[in-house]
Amino acid sequence: MSSPHPRPALSDGPGPFDGLGRLDLALDGGALTARLVDFPSVSGDEAALADAVVAALRPLPHLSVERFGNNVVARTNLGRAERVVLAGHLDTVPIADNLPSRVEGDLLYGCGTSDMKAGVAVQLRIAATVPEPNRDLTFVFYDCEEVEADRNGLGHLARERPDWLHGDFAVLLEPSSAVVEGGCQGTMRVVVRITGQRAHSARSWLGDNAIHGAAELLGRLAAYRPRRVEIDGLEYREGLNAVLIDGGVAGNVIPDLCTVTVNFRFAPDRSEEQALAHVREVLAGFDVELTDSAPGALPGLAHPAAQAFVAATGGVPRAKYGWTDVARFAGLGIPAVNYGPGDPNLAHKREEHCSLAAITECERRIAAWLTG
Amino acid sequence: MSSPHPRPALSDGPGPFDGLGRLDLALDGGALTARLVDFPSVSGDEAALADAVVAALRPLPHLSVERFGNNVVARTNLGRAERVVLAGHLDTVPIADNLPSRVEGDLLYGCGTSDMKAGVAVQLRIAATVPEPNRDLTFVFYDCEEVEADRNGLGHLARERPDWLHGDFAVLLEPSSAVVEGGCQGTMRVVVRITGQRAHSARSWLGDNAIHGAAELLGRLAAYRPRRVEIDGLEYREGLNAVLIDGGVAGNVIPDLCTVTVNFRFAPDRSEEQALAHVREVLAGFDVELTDSAPGALPGLAHPAAQAFVAATGGVPRAKYGWTDVARFAGLGIPAVNYGPGDPNLAHKREEHCSLAAITECERRIAAWLTG
Repeated sequence: MSSPHPRPALSDGPGPFDGLGRLDLALDGGALTARLVDFPSVSGDEAALADAVVAALRPLPHLSVERFGNNVVARTNLGRAERVVLAGHLDTVPIADNLPSRVEGDLLYGCGTSDMKAGVAVQLRIAATVPEPNRDLTFVFYDCEEVEADRNGLGHLARERPDWLHGDFAVLLEPSSAVVEGGCQGTMRVVVRITGQRAHSARSWLGDNAIHGAAELLGRLAAYRPRRVEIDGLEYREGLNAVLIDGGVAGNVIPDLCTVTVNFRFAPDRSEEQALAHVREVLAGFDVELTDSAPGALPGLAHPAAQAFVAATGGVPRAKYGWTDVARFAGLGIPAVNYGPGDPNLAHKREEHCSLAAITECERRIAAWLTG
Repeated sequence: MSSPHPRPALSDGPGPFDGLGRLDLALDGGALTARLVDFPSVSGDEAALADAVVAALRPLPHLSVERFGNNVVARTNLGRAERVVLAGHLDTVPIADNLPSRVEGDLLYGCGTSDMKAGVAVQLRIAATVPEPNRDLTFVFYDCEEVEADRNGLGHLARERPDWLHGDFAVLLEPSSAVVEGGCQGTMRVVVRITGQRAHSARSWLGDNAIHGAAELLGRLAAYRPRRVEIDGLEYREGLNAVLIDGGVAGNVIPDLCTVTVNFRFAPDRSEEQALAHVREVLAGFDVELTDSAPGALPGLAHPAAQAFVAATGGVPRAKYGWTDVARFAGLGIPAVNYGPGDPNLAHKREEHCSLAAITECERRIAAWLTG
């Protein structure tokens, strides 16, 4: 993209975002991203943006559009042999004095540019410009991805409208620097409680120091060699780490309790049960309590639609380490990957930005896959 | 004490502590303790009790009485070869629904009975009943012992009126179950900061886990064998303990900081400098910062006045492990011991109480030492 992106006329109206009630899907991907960014849609406050998405998609005759809360699902019904899902979340983390958007050269700055309104813009552009795709398409726009798991709109759809999500393969347009990221690792947290006997520290031999009791636990974690495993050609690297520790009563008391929270990130060839059994084995002898857990997702790159997608996007797929909503699709039996124009390292940062050229290129490759 | 102690007529007046403005030093030690207990004097609120102490001592012709804030010092000036100090604090920890005092058999219950109004009663009784002691006497009644060190009345006197505290030997009438407790151990706290590199826990190899870095530190502390050392025939037992630990940012972040507070209780043959050097040696390689320190006090039992005191009290002296104000006397060059009728294990407890017979016996032994 060689010409500078026209900055939206944000200062013309009485309010900062007036006049942006309409999304013009004829805009190029970069300009459309800027429009989307200038709809503030912090988690829980996505209604106006969902309204605009519905209003933009409803006029398209090749799509049927449905809404559940602030989740919007649009589908082609062309009777194709395969159906693929293109999914993205509408919400952003809280605004950090980084709205409205602004352009510097090829870069569009602003809250949600990378994570993930650039991806949503690509979804909308494909919806508008590929009326006769070679695979049936389902576009999913959902809310509350950036907050507690039980508010996640994709989770709500999976429970309340699972048929809307049906498909053979899913692409989540989360920022991945335009590289296919396959599957995702699972994650679980356990709390280890080490107990002792309280005593005045002037008579420490009358007590049993629970913090000292953590030495063995931390020693095992420090010595732990995490597994590296290859699945569908992608390498996953696990990790077992103390992430929080807390112990002690006062400066003159031998502590009777030390609590360590341990996070296990596990490759998707382990189930949650297997992962917990492994943690219990490593931490044998300690009081281990599971506090939360989310399964991983296998990359699913063996599926024909996935292979065609990888071929069309042209890159070398890599493993996804962080937990993402592809695991929700995996839970529905739908292989899924992350593929989006943003840079994941910029997500949630004040200086968040996205390359305008990358947005256009991402759209071009997905369109090629769906029309080739 | 064979006859039951007469319970003060606390319920006669309109308010719970009415009619108690005067301390009758002709009462026996138990009854006087009850009167003192029924003057609430939580730290910072000792003025009324200090007034009463001054009013009770001023009429005694063998004493000169001085006051500094809520600290009262009374002295004989008989030109004896030795001067001994009898010291006690007027304040108590907060009342825990345990006032007014009450008697059950030989036991007087109430806030401050053991720590240390029984000791103060003994001081007052000696002041009133031993007008011609064989050693000159200095009685010190001070405030704010139960709170932060910089509010301590004995510390204020040591800085502002050091000449009032002059003496050859001091007895602090803190509860010691009527056993001479010699000297006290020193105490210091250091904070150890273990740093690392923050990273998302899904990519833990990009970080450096500071909590895991604490394994080596805690291992050294757990393996540490504290010294036992005999001084003046008393055995001191040291202790080096982690008392607080804190680390971690969030459940999905490799922590870049873990902070461990370590408390060293050291025998009084080490200076603070030597104690700190020892801690630094044990924790070599770690970032150790001294946060607070208080010196120990040698038992000083070689002094003739101390030897006579031990002989008069008749027990076998033992080492004092906790830090007490005897260290302040040691800092002024005055050997000091703890010796008082209360049970130190009952201090600061709701069910705090003191044996009435023990109060009388303590008074009798000290009087014997000073008149023998």
